[in-house]
Amino acid sequence: MHTYGIDIWGEDNFIIENGLAKLNYASKPALVDIVRDIREQDFKGPLLLRFPHLTRLQIEKLYTLYNNAINEYDYKGKFNAVFPLKVNQLPNFLLPLIKSGEEFGYGLEAGSKAELFLAMTYNKIGAPITINGFKDKEMIHLAFIAKKMGHNITVIIEGLNELKMILEVEKETSLPTPNVGIRVRLFNSGGGAWAKSGGIDSKFGLSSTEILEAYELLKSNNLLHYLTMIHFHIGSAMTNIKPLKKALKESGHIYAELKNMGATNLKAINIGGGLAVEYSQYHRTTQYHLQEFANDVIFTLKNIAKQKGVEEPNIFTESGRFISANSTVLVTPVLELFSAEYELSNLRLKEENPPLIEELNELYKDMNGKTALEYMHDSMDHLESLLKLFDLGYIDLQDRSNAEILAQLIIKKAISLLEIADYEELKRIDNKIQEKYLLNFSIFQSLPDFWGINQEFPIMPITHLDKKPTRSASLWDITCDSDGEIEFNAKKPLYLHDVNLEKEEYYLAFFNVGAYQDTLGMRHNLFSHPTEVNVVFENNELKLEKIIESQKIIDILEDIDYDTKEIKKILKSSLDKSTYVILKKYLNENSYLKTSWSH
Amino acid sequence: MHTYGIDIWGEDNFIIENGLAKLNYASKPALVDIVRDIREQDFKGPLLLRFPHLTRLQIEKLYTLYNNAINEYDYKGKFNAVFPLKVNQLPNFLLPLIKSGEEFGYGLEAGSKAELFLAMTYNKIGAPITINGFKDKEMIHLAFIAKKMGHNITVIIEGLNELKMILEVEKETSLPTPNVGIRVRLFNSGGGAWAKSGGIDSKFGLSSTEILEAYELLKSNNLLHYLTMIHFHIGSAMTNIKPLKKALKESGHIYAELKNMGATNLKAINIGGGLAVEYSQYHRTTQYHLQEFANDVIFTLKNIAKQKGVEEPNIFTESGRFISANSTVLVTPVLELFSAEYELSNLRLKEENPPLIEELNELYKDMNGKTALEYMHDSMDHLESLLKLFDLGYIDLQDRSNAEILAQLIIKKAISLLEIADYEELKRIDNKIQEKYLLNFSIFQSLPDFWGINQEFPIMPITHLDKKPTRSASLWDITCDSDGEIEFNAKKPLYLHDVNLEKEEYYLAFFNVGAYQDTLGMRHNLFSHPTEVNVVFENNELKLEKIIESQKIIDILEDIDYDTKEIKKILKSSLDKSTYVILKKYLNENSYLKTSWSH
Repeated sequence: MHTYGIDIWGEDNFIIENGLAKLNYASKPALVDIVRDIREQDFKGPLLLRFPHLTRLQIEKLYTLYNNAINEYDYKGKFNAVFPLKVNQLPNFLLPLIKSGEEFGYGLEAGSKAELFLAMTYNKIGAPITINGFKDKEMIHLAFIAKKMGHNITVIIEGLNELKMILEVEKETSLPTPNVGIRVRLFNSGGGAWAKSGGIDSKFGLSSTEILEAYELLKSNNLLHYLTMIHFHIGSAMTNIKPLKKALKESGHIYAELKNMGATNLKAINIGGGLAVEYSQYHRTTQYHLQEFANDVIFTLKNIAKQKGVEEPNIFTESGRFISANSTVLVTPVLELFSAEYELSNLRLKEENPPLIEELNELYKDMNGKTALEYMHDSMDHLESLLKLFDLGYIDLQDRSNAEILAQLIIKKAISLLEIADYEELKRIDNKIQEKYLLNFSIFQSLPDFWGINQEFPIMPITHLDKKPTRSASLWDITCDSDGEIEFNAKKPLYLHDVNLEKEEYYLAFFNVGAYQDTLGMRHNLFSHPTEVNVVFENNELKLEKIIESQKIIDILEDIDYDTKEIKKILKSSLDKSTYVILKKYLNENSYLKTSWSH
Repeated sequence: MHTYGIDIWGEDNFIIENGLAKLNYASKPALVDIVRDIREQDFKGPLLLRFPHLTRLQIEKLYTLYNNAINEYDYKGKFNAVFPLKVNQLPNFLLPLIKSGEEFGYGLEAGSKAELFLAMTYNKIGAPITINGFKDKEMIHLAFIAKKMGHNITVIIEGLNELKMILEVEKETSLPTPNVGIRVRLFNSGGGAWAKSGGIDSKFGLSSTEILEAYELLKSNNLLHYLTMIHFHIGSAMTNIKPLKKALKESGHIYAELKNMGATNLKAINIGGGLAVEYSQYHRTTQYHLQEFANDVIFTLKNIAKQKGVEEPNIFTESGRFISANSTVLVTPVLELFSAEYELSNLRLKEENPPLIEELNELYKDMNGKTALEYMHDSMDHLESLLKLFDLGYIDLQDRSNAEILAQLIIKKAISLLEIADYEELKRIDNKIQEKYLLNFSIFQSLPDFWGINQEFPIMPITHLDKKPTRSASLWDITCDSDGEIEFNAKKPLYLHDVNLEKEEYYLAFFNVGAYQDTLGMRHNLFSHPTEVNVVFENNELKLEKIIESQKIIDILEDIDYDTKEIKKILKSSLDKSTYVILKKYLNENSYLKTSWSH
């Protein structure tokens, strides 16, 4: 059985049973059954399935990890966590997260005014709010207002000008002052894929000189007691724990120095994000155990506190990917397989053929297990020569077609002859042999990080898992963009099934898409955010909650500032009534393609 | 004078005069004056300035190039062009484009149902519409309806199934049949940056076998007379003309073969996009003259037609970047310079300092033109050592601050000593010396191609151009993402001015952002599409038309499916009336930061 690396990335949240991908929870529904339920309600195109119970599970895990470590080392500080809103601000994801986090005092982190409004509105009073990122005076004013609402809020300054604005608002209003944190610029940068956010030249944080100046400013304005936190972030999704240990030491020293200078209310170190998510389906990329990560944090800070003679700091974390990635699964229908046309039945050999075509024909007939690889490579050479002959006008379109068919047939035959061996054999074969799977989705809208930073996501068909996948696959989306393709990569090969889409349906699922992919989604070709749904369970019974359909075409046009009344008027005036009725129906549907499977 | 490569990318559309970047058109307004006009109307944050006259100019250029070539070679085919909507669908850009294109018969290309609706609504009857991309039956039905509206429409099929759907719709409805085009998969792929869209393994197009099958299908259904076009696209923004010539030959042979077989109405070859835009401000990347490009197209097709004894085909092009890129300029206010804090006045040397600090102090004092480079590198070594000593608890925060200040002062002094030499000197200096410029915009929203494919855009301050820029610059956006940075690149160095933002304003402009950047924009941190405006001229007088303000925060939240009534209700209920009034005001503003310059 080909398991698509589910043991590497699946964390036991998904299982394969009877050839189907299933949720390993409650009634253990097959993903394909959930998909069919939704599609029967006439929602077409790609689907985002959200599983709030997985978000809850991750929150529990996070608190358990740290509280275990705190107990083990008899650590005196407390553990706190906030969810960084930038990772996923959508209500279907966020509102259940807040509910699940209530019992833990799980809070929110905001990085812009819009995000701060979400935190002010929906964060549970008492649970912490932290504000990162660059701020204007208005945003700082908002923090004061949040404090007045009763929120436990900390403004983490990214520069001295922000502190000055805090002092101004404090003087100009009668609002209560929020806590102040200082983002420190560390010398020890992170080692993860996003390590650029750490280091002495990073975009964020105050230098030592600025930290001292901030301290003086607070002190001279009698506001030193509001300084409660220092913050650093050395890169999300760290695959290695060493850089974090170094950063903890460095920040621990800064914490202790400030405390010893007189910042008595300074009680917390915010270590930013960092817990990695396993995105690979080929080999584990994360080199530490999660408990080890938490233990190291606690142990390192305990030691520094002891060395410097200060109290053990409370810990804040802002892990986003860890909390959100696995909650969301993208399911895309396969619309078509694109090498199906190179069939023997299409071969139209002439009475007399160009010599290279005759040779191809011989290669095809004579090929056996032993000669398969050699003949396959010969046939590819011949094809190239024949295509050149066509360019020069020496052979005609029918010859060219015969050449293409024979070459493809030879490759297919070679694969079937080599199938008896293991996949390693196939990996060596030239990459001209893949099947192209056309998927009803937009990579730009649904997997922006694949386009932008070559982020891998685990990919798996949700049916057929009891059959051996024999086709090395390239995936195409439906945008008019050649970047809308996940190319076959021999080092990380994706094999899919040879399906007949006129007789059976075939869906591919992309896992771990709950972090960033929603909010970064691009409207290339005007494709909109997919239809999404929360899959929840009540008394073990599955319920589809809060289905939000992908935008209608008319709403997309409205969104990009067209006068949609005018559009309707123009279309109506140039068509008879019955045709316009059809047009109007189409305008009120989403923009994805309908598959042959009725939706 | 530092001209930021305006002679390379500017095409005489922008000029530098009296230290200001100006539009080289009509009253030649300075960009900064346009910006001030808009900001005085209380629009804050980044601005997109659109210049419809530049779009018009590009359309004229395109037609002139090809018609010149047609005249020169006494070519019998006609030139036609369509604008690919995916490149920019926004109404402020598109509606003026359609108006400018009327007299040329300039048409539109659609790649999705939403885009097809735009074409059906706004395309001038008679001007061509082409449809590319993957289609479902509904989209094909729409094409029939467009035909009925009177549009000159060609459905370019990407696969045989699409042709089968055309046959079905033709049988099932009484609507008139649109013209049919075939996208052909060529062996000769493009050489440009986007070359993946060409080639035998490309995402798009029919193989020879499929072309022959399509021919048979049309013939056996008595619809062969609808076959009017073959289409290829070997990659947009080709920097080299050779691959196009090869592709023209190959497609020319396919065209001639089909004609000779009996496709008598086949009259056009659609050569896709391809005209490059100069994005570099350092050296020209486009290796051909535009007229040469057009001449080669005409000459090559003329020769093939002669060789094969068929009539010379009409030509269609779908150039998008060439038409749209230069029409739009992004202007971002600089919010802050981030190395300003390392001043001598902040140095707090102790009575007794660690030896390395004393050494740094000596280096700083003794440095001269001859020793500058050497001392600078020494100081960077010392800084690294001192930071390590801090980590180990050997020096305190004040020492660390002194080390950072001295190192920075030494670097600055070195730069000023080396300034007498040319920029080549500076390029060799370690990249730790840049000034960080914080810009009021989001790279994810406004320059997605920088994030995704490292696309360069010409960058230039719009004032201060009579002064020598002395700071090697890194640019930061206001997102909470370390990828939101345009790092200093010694090979393509950006130098900016050392400005005092408390006394003067400083704006950076990004040019050539009219292609793709609008529609690919991402909502990272919920930052929205910038405020945009059309800058038009009537009787030489500048008018600001159709200002569309960047989305209000409350509308962004509505857009991502929050119940904004609930948000308002919750906020209102937890605050006194006067505070809520302030909050409501903020909710109704856009999410960008206010600068110290009042907006």
